[in-house]
Amino acid sequence: MGMTITEKILARAAGHKTVAPGDIINANVDVMMCHDVTTPPAISMLAERGIDGVFDPDRIVVTPDHFQPAKDIKSAQLLKRLDEWARRNKIKNYYPIGKAGVCHALLPEKGHIRPGEVIVGGDSHTCTYGALAAFSAGIGSTDLAAALATGELWFRVPESMKFVLNGSLGKGVYSKDIIIAIITRIGTDGARYRAMEFVGSTISELSMEARMTITNMAIEAGGKSGIIGFDETTKKYLDEHLTAGVTEYTVFESDPDAQYCRIEEFDVSALEPMVALPNLPSNGVAIGECEGTEMDQAYIGSCTNGRIEDLRIAAEFFKGRKAAIRTIVVPATPSIWKQANKEGLLDIFADADCVVAAPTCGACLGGFMGILADKEKCISTTNRNFVGRMGHPKSEVYLASPATAAASAVEGKLTDPRKFMS
Amino acid sequence: MGMTITEKILARAAGHKTVAPGDIINANVDVMMCHDVTTPPAISMLAERGIDGVFDPDRIVVTPDHFQPAKDIKSAQLLKRLDEWARRNKIKNYYPIGKAGVCHALLPEKGHIRPGEVIVGGDSHTCTYGALAAFSAGIGSTDLAAALATGELWFRVPESMKFVLNGSLGKGVYSKDIIIAIITRIGTDGARYRAMEFVGSTISELSMEARMTITNMAIEAGGKSGIIGFDETTKKYLDEHLTAGVTEYTVFESDPDAQYCRIEEFDVSALEPMVALPNLPSNGVAIGECEGTEMDQAYIGSCTNGRIEDLRIAAEFFKGRKAAIRTIVVPATPSIWKQANKEGLLDIFADADCVVAAPTCGACLGGFMGILADKEKCISTTNRNFVGRMGHPKSEVYLASPATAAASAVEGKLTDPRKFMS
Repeated sequence: MGMTITEKILARAAGHKTVAPGDIINANVDVMMCHDVTTPPAISMLAERGIDGVFDPDRIVVTPDHFQPAKDIKSAQLLKRLDEWARRNKIKNYYPIGKAGVCHALLPEKGHIRPGEVIVGGDSHTCTYGALAAFSAGIGSTDLAAALATGELWFRVPESMKFVLNGSLGKGVYSKDIIIAIITRIGTDGARYRAMEFVGSTISELSMEARMTITNMAIEAGGKSGIIGFDETTKKYLDEHLTAGVTEYTVFESDPDAQYCRIEEFDVSALEPMVALPNLPSNGVAIGECEGTEMDQAYIGSCTNGRIEDLRIAAEFFKGRKAAIRTIVVPATPSIWKQANKEGLLDIFADADCVVAAPTCGACLGGFMGILADKEKCISTTNRNFVGRMGHPKSEVYLASPATAAASAVEGKLTDPRKFMS
Repeated sequence: MGMTITEKILARAAGHKTVAPGDIINANVDVMMCHDVTTPPAISMLAERGIDGVFDPDRIVVTPDHFQPAKDIKSAQLLKRLDEWARRNKIKNYYPIGKAGVCHALLPEKGHIRPGEVIVGGDSHTCTYGALAAFSAGIGSTDLAAALATGELWFRVPESMKFVLNGSLGKGVYSKDIIIAIITRIGTDGARYRAMEFVGSTISELSMEARMTITNMAIEAGGKSGIIGFDETTKKYLDEHLTAGVTEYTVFESDPDAQYCRIEEFDVSALEPMVALPNLPSNGVAIGECEGTEMDQAYIGSCTNGRIEDLRIAAEFFKGRKAAIRTIVVPATPSIWKQANKEGLLDIFADADCVVAAPTCGACLGGFMGILADKEKCISTTNRNFVGRMGHPKSEVYLASPATAAASAVEGKLTDPRKFMS
């Protein structure tokens, strides 16, 4: 019986010839991602057991991102513990503040994600890295502590769920709209503990960055992981980004007779720009159904849509226009900031009266840099619109693509991006 | 008997021919500066008395700056109340987030400060505006409420204290070093409730921006206000900045026989780059006495030293170099951000691994964007180094010029900027 790409990667990592959904395996972890919120507790848990060292510093990548630069004393203390631990353990892939960026944008960009590997991170959106044909899952601080100390972690091999996406995206429609549509169809628990495998001609046409937006939100459907197979686009991205450290990798692909617990097909040709209404990512509607709802803030950034391609898309809407509402643009990493500046994008945002922030997760998770007040509504390119996610429990978050967010920023209300596209 | 410039301005504003120190006057207030921390309480105080309107919206300038974009729910609520109040009252000089900047940099830049006027603001560093030959003082929320409602405010006419500064500044020495040296000589209560009048050939040679650094810190010596007479430099600045609104102004100058309660003379030729050691701005020492002290962070920004000239000075040190410690650069206003970007300064900072933040007061007052952890030391271009000012009660702040801060950032320890200057 054939195996899926996910099963093959996990089998390899566990030293087994084959694995099947439901198997409990002990997998060798290739990369562990550590940030400023969940890693300090892991460090403390290990310290309580007299452990300060790590199994292999070279498999660890550390970047503060959530509350950096420190937003308050509490976060300053977390950042300090993370910094001291990383330096003590001589973690060479440590990105201190100034080099730090939103983890899920930074790790692929810096060449820390390779196909065929098992990656874990103390962050729910660690599933992002699956866009590079790797198995990647978010874990809590306890599991992270175990992985840091032993280099291994147990998993229950997930069932795989296949999403077959065909058709070409229409004008004003992006990968963010696809993933909102998918989550809306299957629900926030529709892929619970499953590996969401995305295939089809639509995926083949998407850039690497656009793919990451899709796998990033696998967790919003409850997925254990999201994964996209290796192709020429993947190879090109890796050729450009695997410039240091480990540059070799193994490509796995799903067998034709691999087993899927469910297969969902989508024709994206008819897809409209989507907005996930408060308070669930599964509350997606076509823009036409919510157009005109007045917003107080637009937020363009995060691990979902804070990459250079996203900023390029958003900038098109601000060229020669002004933001009608408070608009915060947050390039996800220093390299993205620099590239965006080189291309004149930051000037476009600044001229449109947007706040151009330094890389951070910022307001996405209610951290800082645009927290919402009572009853405020925000159109956001982020991944979650739970109650109070970006601030006050009575504030509201509307999720959309950078295009829809930018168009809405210019109009001050939910707006179809196609209105501005010729 | 002659009058000082301060007495003349207050006499004019009170409708008196003359005033003398100690007189209690009721002055017409020309400009009221409102930001996000102290104005919302003033709004509430007025609301409790059934007052929502203001005496004259055109005399009010509103800019959020301390906690903007919102750093948490509490600040979001403050910002919302400020925003709603400003819009309700049709305050045309309202700079919402995106256009907002550090108040004491923004108001002169936008042409809201004119010689001969009385300016109050709900912020202790409102004394900054005295650099433009105006009387300007920080007030609390209660006084602000009174001024907003009535357009007037009572003052006790302050004694004036004259600071005669002669000589030319040496290499690596700036106006920040002058004011640290002055405060160090007279102490943090050395000018309590006095108008600090700065005169002499040194002042004449200083740019308008450099002068603002001096008047900005008058409050750090306890001064009621700081003031510098009108000259060609003032005129040139006003010609460039008074482009809208009220463009007329009256120039006052101190009479030759004006009375001063104290006169302090300084020859700045021998002045060294200064550092105010923790925990008082009066703890100034020459850089040579503290060189080598290791720092954890450098902070370049604030109403004291976040203007374009400051960024130009700092950038020289980062050209082709890297920051050795966490370094946060905060252009004080959107215009400064844009100008700095146009000149390539932001790229220089970014290439040096500095965090380039959006305009905000940020970490200066322990707000956000670089708060210090336990025992961390920060070299900062800000104005106060009180216990816990920038974060943890056990953190330490060292005040210095942008040159000394930048040189120290590059070296990771307190460094004489002249080391990098040919």
